[in-house]
Amino acid sequence: MNAGTIYGLGLGPGDPDLMTVRAQRLLQQARHVAFFRKAGRSGQARRIVEGLLPKDATEYPMEYPVTTEIPFSDPAYKRLLAGFYETCTARLHELAQKGEDVIVLCEGDPFFYGSFMHLYTRLVDQVPVQVVPAITGMSAAWTATGAPITWGDDVLTVLMGTLDEADLARHLAQTDAAVIMKIGRNIEKVRRALRESGRYEQAWLVEFASMPEQTIHRLSEAEGRVTPYFSIIIVHGQGRRP
Amino acid sequence: MNAGTIYGLGLGPGDPDLMTVRAQRLLQQARHVAFFRKAGRSGQARRIVEGLLPKDATEYPMEYPVTTEIPFSDPAYKRLLAGFYETCTARLHELAQKGEDVIVLCEGDPFFYGSFMHLYTRLVDQVPVQVVPAITGMSAAWTATGAPITWGDDVLTVLMGTLDEADLARHLAQTDAAVIMKIGRNIEKVRRALRESGRYEQAWLVEFASMPEQTIHRLSEAEGRVTPYFSIIIVHGQGRRP
Ligand SMILES: C[S@@+](CC[C@H](N)C(=O)[O-])C[C@H]1O[C@@H](n2cnc3c(N)ncnc32)[C@H](O)[C@@H]1O
Ligand SMILES: C[S@@+](CC[C@H](N)C(=O)[O-])C[C@H]1O[C@@H](n2cnc3c(N)ncnc32)[C@H](O)[C@@H]1O
Repeated sequence: MNAGTIYGLGLGPGDPDLMTVRAQRLLQQARHVAFFRKAGRSGQARRIVEGLLPKDATEYPMEYPVTTEIPFSDPAYKRLLAGFYETCTARLHELAQKGEDVIVLCEGDPFFYGSFMHLYTRLVDQVPVQVVPAITGMSAAWTATGAPITWGDDVLTVLMGTLDEADLARHLAQTDAAVIMKIGRNIEKVRRALRESGRYEQAWLVEFASMPEQTIHRLSEAEGRVTPYFSIIIVHGQGRRP
Repeated sequence: MNAGTIYGLGLGPGDPDLMTVRAQRLLQQARHVAFFRKAGRSGQARRIVEGLLPKDATEYPMEYPVTTEIPFSDPAYKRLLAGFYETCTARLHELAQKGEDVIVLCEGDPFFYGSFMHLYTRLVDQVPVQVVPAITGMSAAWTATGAPITWGDDVLTVLMGTLDEADLARHLAQTDAAVIMKIGRNIEKVRRALRESGRYEQAWLVEFASMPEQTIHRLSEAEGRVTPYFSIIIVHGQGRRP
């Protein structure tokens, strides 16, 4: 018997209309659908496909272990997550071995800071795996601002809010355009780094890009705002323009 | 009478299957379709939608003036291009004023180093303009390599091959992951910058990502190769991975 294929299926930034034609077709034929979520949450990837899955598809929520008490740098954090990814992988592997195709729902583009890659690297030498690219959250965010992110030969730097303040400021000072993701509780540190690098007044904050709750603010006009997980900061490039 | 809307319609990296559901729907209803192309070429954006336009849609090719004899830095280059964009804008504006919707076909994501923005900035205060985001060429390129571009808090830097060698090398030395676009005749300079920054052995060359002619090489194993316009160099990040 042939093994089934595991699809890392990029769903795009949130609006189901921004899904690819390929993603839509794969979803319509889906029999097994896995997705990550936080305990007690419905999961953003699952939310995007609401109403789009066949009635008889089996769903496999993969719930992140609670890690808020353990800092990133603690080896216990790494162990806990590694164990979690092993468990998920084993389940998907078993289905594929039985000849079943499995779709793993991914927010945005799977290979761009996605969680799917932790499964991908563990599975790719075992069973057929296919990755379907998608629109990133940052594309939806800069589109929402109504201005191009980059022109001519602008340099674009993508930074995570989890970096140190000094690293953030250094990179921000040396780039033309910037995107900052994973903001959440790092927002005040990110604001300081933007100020230090002289980019604060040019920064825009986009929450829930392309989703029904989408908001767009100049960062400097949203002081004190509590930013959700789905937040992106955009600094537009100002390059060559005939 | 209401003015028509001008759509900057992102088509994605090349494979029509990677177009969004929204793009597909807008194309099916299209009456006026404009696109850039080089003189004597069919144009990549037009090629992506081959067979997808209604039979009675009117097409408006916008042919770039030949500029190979004039260097970028020459003010004559800027004047020539500015004049060209003005002419294109006038034609689109006229259609919109008559109440007609016009679709401008865009390769990849329109606001990511796209040519559409030169029309966008000229039109946005005159008539309704909507931008539809899409998968970028780089997403298709890193997906083709079969490895994630970024992990954890990797920094990603997007660079144009048109930059100076020293600038390229400096940015490459300071980033975790990198994407280099607009390579073409800049390939030897880009190779030197990758060597100087110690990233040459990690670099991949993807030509025609997601198109029928797609090729993938380790850059170091493709010495002397003549790279087409649709080429992207990828240096993967190696960040935190539980
Ligand atoms: C783990 S990364 C996943 C990125 C995703 N794979 C992509 O292609 O965009 C999660 C971060 O992406 C950003 N993000 C993704 N989609 C978003 C959206 N629609 N609106 C705002 N932020 C988004 C947020 O910064 C969030 O913290
Ligand atoms: C003017 S930029 C346009 C970028 C486009 N708006 C996007 O979102 O990818 C042109 C450059 O994009 C890159 N490119 C775009 N699509 C590509 C593809 N499918 N394969 C390889 N390179 C591509 C090439 O480096 C090319 O020189």
